[in-house]
Amino acid sequence: MGEIILKTFDWVPERPRGFVRDLRVRWALEEAGLPYRVEAVSFRDRGAAHFAHQPFGQVPWILDGELSIFETGAILLHLGEQSPALLPRAPVDRATAINWMFAAINSMEMAIMPMLILSFAGDDGTSPGAQRLQAFRAGRLKHLEAVLATRPWLAGSFSAADILMADALRLVNANTTLADCPACRDYLARATARPAFLKAHADQLAHFAKGDAAQAS
Amino acid sequence: MGEIILKTFDWVPERPRGFVRDLRVRWALEEAGLPYRVEAVSFRDRGAAHFAHQPFGQVPWILDGELSIFETGAILLHLGEQSPALLPRAPVDRATAINWMFAAINSMEMAIMPMLILSFAGDDGTSPGAQRLQAFRAGRLKHLEAVLATRPWLAGSFSAADILMADALRLVNANTTLADCPACRDYLARATARPAFLKAHADQLAHFAKGDAAQAS
Repeated sequence: MGEIILKTFDWVPERPRGFVRDLRVRWALEEAGLPYRVEAVSFRDRGAAHFAHQPFGQVPWILDGELSIFETGAILLHLGEQSPALLPRAPVDRATAINWMFAAINSMEMAIMPMLILSFAGDDGTSPGAQRLQAFRAGRLKHLEAVLATRPWLAGSFSAADILMADALRLVNANTTLADCPACRDYLARATARPAFLKAHADQLAHFAKGDAAQAS
Repeated sequence: MGEIILKTFDWVPERPRGFVRDLRVRWALEEAGLPYRVEAVSFRDRGAAHFAHQPFGQVPWILDGELSIFETGAILLHLGEQSPALLPRAPVDRATAINWMFAAINSMEMAIMPMLILSFAGDDGTSPGAQRLQAFRAGRLKHLEAVLATRPWLAGSFSAADILMADALRLVNANTTLADCPACRDYLARATARPAFLKAHADQLAHFAKGDAAQAS
């Protein structure tokens, strides 16, 4: 197995730092102990070569041998096939972990992201649609709270599902709090205290700080 | 391999009919030609037994031997392991299909669903947040349009990725049109003309009509 190449932007504005999705991939790679290197692509100039790998013009994507994969869920599943630290091997545990990987980005992130976008737009959240989106998120968090009250990790032991779910919950914290969801809050604290998360987060901040320095020089 | 059991509601209101997510699973099962039967759970009374399988109180879920899986993406991936009609076997094609399965529900559905919720809430769409969500969806559709202009299906041949993507695009059509995205529109027409889709759709409508009859009797 060769070294995995992780592609991310050379620079991003302040606000998304610590939240750019290469974080999920860095975190997974650190959990798995897989060899990788980070390569930067231009934030300002996203040409055809970028879109050939990431058709939405976003980051990250990875290159692994002949494979190029851009969705973080798919990347983590791919890395999970290479490491039981990310994806358990017993059939029921494996199915549970994959189920919760999809739940993190579909059942949860899809309910969380709209509220973040409203908040970034400076929306006062009083329109009927904003109220409905708020209720959508609150309902999903309530149900997740009941799950996380029963176990430390989604699929028995820590897995890629927890990387995706914790990163989705970080987005809740980015514009409000998890005060009403103590189990979610404890889960998020537990996940983000892991050495692999701390290294991934610090590495992303350092990477973009290097981008600042390159621009200034 | 035993028969797969697909769990869905016994009844739903008019509006979601034809869009309840068991459709994706029915469609996949029909494409793959896998044996299955549908079992109903109460729409009105969702007890602990329901939440034990589907922690968000939604449908569908499937039972397959010792496995219980509730996220449609995870279900389709599981079914794909059983049928090359859903998931190609060549490594690059397989990775591409899985990548686009995640893209359908994360990059696309996450941008589509909020606008549907706004529309269902009777929101006039003029708040800054609604405008931002509208732009988010428009941007993602524009990029998808460029992809679909180059190929008939996302991963070479038809795959589970197309079931998830086409079903996400159906949600766009549910509150607006794909008039500005001719390749997306043609793709959606191509996908929903497939016999497996037509059967799945008709079966879902018939299933809920039976629920009407049971309530009336």
